Amino acid sequence: MGGDRAPGEIVAGARLVAEQGHISVALVGRPGEMGDIGDLPVFPASEVIGMEDDPGQGVRRKKDSSLVRAAEAVRDGKAMAMVSAGNTGATMASALLRMGRLPGVIRPAIATPIPSPGGTSPTVLLDSGANAEGTPAMLIQFAEMGAAFARKRYAVERPRVALLSIGEEKSKGSPLVKETHALLAEGAGGAGFDFVGNVEGRDFFEGIADVIVTDGFTGNVALKTLEGSMRFLIGALTDILARPELSEAADALYPHLLPLAASLDPDTIGGAMLLGVNGVCVISHGSSSSTAIVSAITVAHDLAVAGLVDAVAASVGPDETGSLDVPGD
Amino acid sequence: MGGDRAPGEIVAGARLVAEQGHISVALVGRPGEMGDIGDLPVFPASEVIGMEDDPGQGVRRKKDSSLVRAAEAVRDGKAMAMVSAGNTGATMASALLRMGRLPGVIRPAIATPIPSPGGTSPTVLLDSGANAEGTPAMLIQFAEMGAAFARKRYAVERPRVALLSIGEEKSKGSPLVKETHALLAEGAGGAGFDFVGNVEGRDFFEGIADVIVTDGFTGNVALKTLEGSMRFLIGALTDILARPELSEAADALYPHLLPLAASLDPDTIGGAMLLGVNGVCVISHGSSSSTAIVSAITVAHDLAVAGLVDAVAASVGPDETGSLDVPGD
Repeated sequence: MGGDRAPGEIVAGARLVAEQGHISVALVGRPGEMGDIGDLPVFPASEVIGMEDDPGQGVRRKKDSSLVRAAEAVRDGKAMAMVSAGNTGATMASALLRMGRLPGVIRPAIATPIPSPGGTSPTVLLDSGANAEGTPAMLIQFAEMGAAFARKRYAVERPRVALLSIGEEKSKGSPLVKETHALLAEGAGGAGFDFVGNVEGRDFFEGIADVIVTDGFTGNVALKTLEGSMRFLIGALTDILARPELSEAADALYPHLLPLAASLDPDTIGGAMLLGVNGVCVISHGSSSSTAIVSAITVAHDLAVAGLVDAVAASVGPDETGSLDVPGD
Repeated sequence: MGGDRAPGEIVAGARLVAEQGHISVALVGRPGEMGDIGDLPVFPASEVIGMEDDPGQGVRRKKDSSLVRAAEAVRDGKAMAMVSAGNTGATMASALLRMGRLPGVIRPAIATPIPSPGGTSPTVLLDSGANAEGTPAMLIQFAEMGAAFARKRYAVERPRVALLSIGEEKSKGSPLVKETHALLAEGAGGAGFDFVGNVEGRDFFEGIADVIVTDGFTGNVALKTLEGSMRFLIGALTDILARPELSEAADALYPHLLPLAASLDPDTIGGAMLLGVNGVCVISHGSSSSTAIVSAITVAHDLAVAGLVDAVAASVGPDETGSLDVPGD
């Protein structure tokens, strides 16, 4: 029921995946309001948490909403994963309250893959907005969970983990960043990744890290700045190419631009993922097309099969050194 | 002596301004290492604070450096303003230690104009990196100083001041942002501007605020993310247009792209400015060309003549309500 283009594009994406035959897909929501759903099964839910609803209140009050019912389906083993293009905060709250937090996890985090058009795997930014603040202990867990995600999602054996700051030197940054840097440099977070130091906002596309760790406030500002800059520049270029006197140039150029645009398109990346909850939860862009939904469902399925949740749990689990004896929380 | 293309481009820019005859320009540095300086006067300085130097140590140890001498020239009334394309931290430290902080200013801030290609005046982002953290009292002063800057620099009579956050609602954001939002909404910062609420990272190019206030850590990450995204996309487009089969399309397109590129070019914007010190100090991009230096010198001169420092001092001064009785520092 959620997303700027719901239910049409959501249902279309779900049907496309189901028709491929490898993945079973169910819809969650009001059966009468979904249009032509073919023979997809439905988990009925009579309520909808909209974009204007407060996430926490929405989940508490609308117990029969599609988001709450989807999270319950995962909790109850009726589904391996949930995908939503709706209210991000409410998606997180549903997953957190119904699936529950993994043991040892201080706070779940949103991991967002940032396209890396150089041909390497995307750079994973987390937390990109699940939390409005951070502590060193949280950031070290984000490093652990992000590394587990990069291994499962992109088969990066030893992910390079960097810390987002305002200078490469360890002396640069907020008190939070400096303290986290010192702990990571001493080996906090365990042996599952290589800490490669600080990176800056200009380094997102440089491919110098597989995982970039930051607090959810900074991560959300950075991600939206990146998206806004891209959208602005692509919009300005599109306007120029639409000028009548440039129609021939545009015709010649577009086939060359398409691979670049595709490599940057969030639709092909498969959405962001909430890490640290006891289930797979993919958060698709609000503007998701059916193509984006196909990617999101496929990624959700593949990661559920690959055991992402167990890997994340192990990365912060009590058996690992480094994650429980960290001060600063 | 500072800047990736110093001294050549710096001297060339200074000479261009001097030749126009309206502004007197002096160089500061090692006379024998500046190349052909024409008949520009020189304030000699035997030392240089390089990019690799620690800013604070550099200023304390290299008392005869060009940055320290430039700041002293402003302090001593031998110059109306200083311009540097060198080590940003050392430029700030020189200005702060030699010119001094304005009375009542908690912390100086770097104000960076972000191009607003829609035809309106640029959006001023501050603090874009002078400080690694912030308090509500600091952010309210940034609002005051930023508004004073927008009035003097862009003749915006009542600047619209926004707070950078992760959602438009007042309930969204870090504790710092939520507390600052509440204070600004109650009228903190005085009557010299309109507080228009929160904006997000995607809003930088939307022209919905004249001044965007944030702490120096977040501001620096956002600014570098914005610059990095632009540089990445422009680089990718330039590579595509260099393909032999696109030479005709490129020839047709470039005249249309130039105005867009010019509107985004930091060289034409005139550099960032350190607000809150007792003198005019323009911080040019490290990569500044002679064109950028011409802009920076012209802006520095115009703002000195327009009384920027007095306006900033008055904006946070003890006569104003709202700036001294703010909790949280």
